Amino acid sequence: MSAQPTLEERRALEDALLDYLTAVDALDDLDGMVACFTEDAVLDLSGLDLDVFEGAQAIRGFYEQVFKTMSHHMHTMTNFRVTEYAPGAARCHAYVCGMGRSQEGTDIQVYVYYDLRMRRTDRGWKIAHFYEAPKLPMPDSVAQVHKSN
Amino acid sequence: MSAQPTLEERRALEDALLDYLTAVDALDDLDGMVACFTEDAVLDLSGLDLDVFEGAQAIRGFYEQVFKTMSHHMHTMTNFRVTEYAPGAARCHAYVCGMGRSQEGTDIQVYVYYDLRMRRTDRGWKIAHFYEAPKLPMPDSVAQVHKSN
Amino acid sequence: MSAQPTLEERRALEDALLDYLTAVDALDDLDGMVACFTEDAVLDLSGLDLDVFEGAQAIRGFYEQVFKTMSHHMHTMTNFRVTEYAPGAARCHAYVCGMGRSQEGTDIQVYVYYDLRMRRTDRGWKIAHFYEAPKLPMPDSVAQVHKSN
Repeated sequence: MSAQPTLEERRALEDALLDYLTAVDALDDLDGMVACFTEDAVLDLSGLDLDVFEGAQAIRGFYEQVFKTMSHHMHTMTNFRVTEYAPGAARCHAYVCGMGRSQEGTDIQVYVYYDLRMRRTDRGWKIAHFYEAPKLPMPDSVAQVHKSN
Repeated sequence: MSAQPTLEERRALEDALLDYLTAVDALDDLDGMVACFTEDAVLDLSGLDLDVFEGAQAIRGFYEQVFKTMSHHMHTMTNFRVTEYAPGAARCHAYVCGMGRSQEGTDIQVYVYYDLRMRRTDRGWKIAHFYEAPKLPMPDSVAQVHKSN
Repeated sequence: MSAQPTLEERRALEDALLDYLTAVDALDDLDGMVACFTEDAVLDLSGLDLDVFEGAQAIRGFYEQVFKTMSHHMHTMTNFRVTEYAPGAARCHAYVCGMGRSQEGTDIQVYVYYDLRMRRTDRGWKIAHFYEAPKLPMPDSVAQVHKSN
């Protein structure tokens, strides 16, 4: 995976991530949310001490819960880099400041990095493997709000 | 407006927004500030519970007041997307963290989105309609500092 | 220096800055850190009331100290602009939010701008002159943590 993406491919990869962030922050479009992933995608939130979700249905279930829990979301993305690339497959790294307020009024602000495996599908670039972890020490509020059961 | 901008056009649109942010943060160049807009531009700050300013003169008046009021400004922009595009006209969406300190020492930090209608003029891409609104709940300090009397 | 960089050159310049930020935040690769600079580079931190470091060895010494001092680093970069350009030489401006935690547990968050002179070398674009200064008023913690004795 030592090839370099063209500017068009790099743009398309970054836009695929922006599509994801747009859906996460809209908090109301589960179909659009799941459409950012491949059917067999893995959403690995173990870096946040949360679960690993495998496949579109499990991922949908996670975001269904998130959308119910949160009243506001804003995820700002910077320092996007393509760290590995081959035609049809890429690895991307980005910083994200994830901010939000839960329905119960708890404010969250976390500083994380995303490490994403992207795959080109007939629907365009999609997230095949999503991993995130803290880049700065985490506040306690995250596990309180998002931890399943 | 279903066409896609070329990479060059997308770059030019994002640069037009960066020119705006550079002028806002310089706090000293009213001509450069107003030059970011079309002559008939509308600056709609109703989403912040502020006024709607129509035309270059009204917009100049608003920023004249802002420049007098603030001692520091820093507007960081992320998640830039072109949401609609036709040759000569585009709609752009971005996240902005607007930070500053007023002459009286009040610190401001707001998390907003910009929804911009851009038009290509003989001076390049300019803002024809500017709308912003909170993406996260707003602190009280903004209305205190910027509200016109 | 009135020429405009191609999209490829602009991308390469921004990537050179992202390489720098990646090395600063990794906190463990002094060779990679120094490789972001030209051999004769100047790291001018006088805008932060810190020292001016001239040449690769002095720059290495500064980051050696920083890497020992800090347990976490995250530098988010936005508003990247190429402000001057000629083939082989460029000036770039960016906003950076520099965040971190020292080994002693002091959290730092500063809002600065970078004003960089870049030079194209046979290793690609490198930083020849690095200047940064606060864009918003600075907290006291920075001088406490980084000031050379």
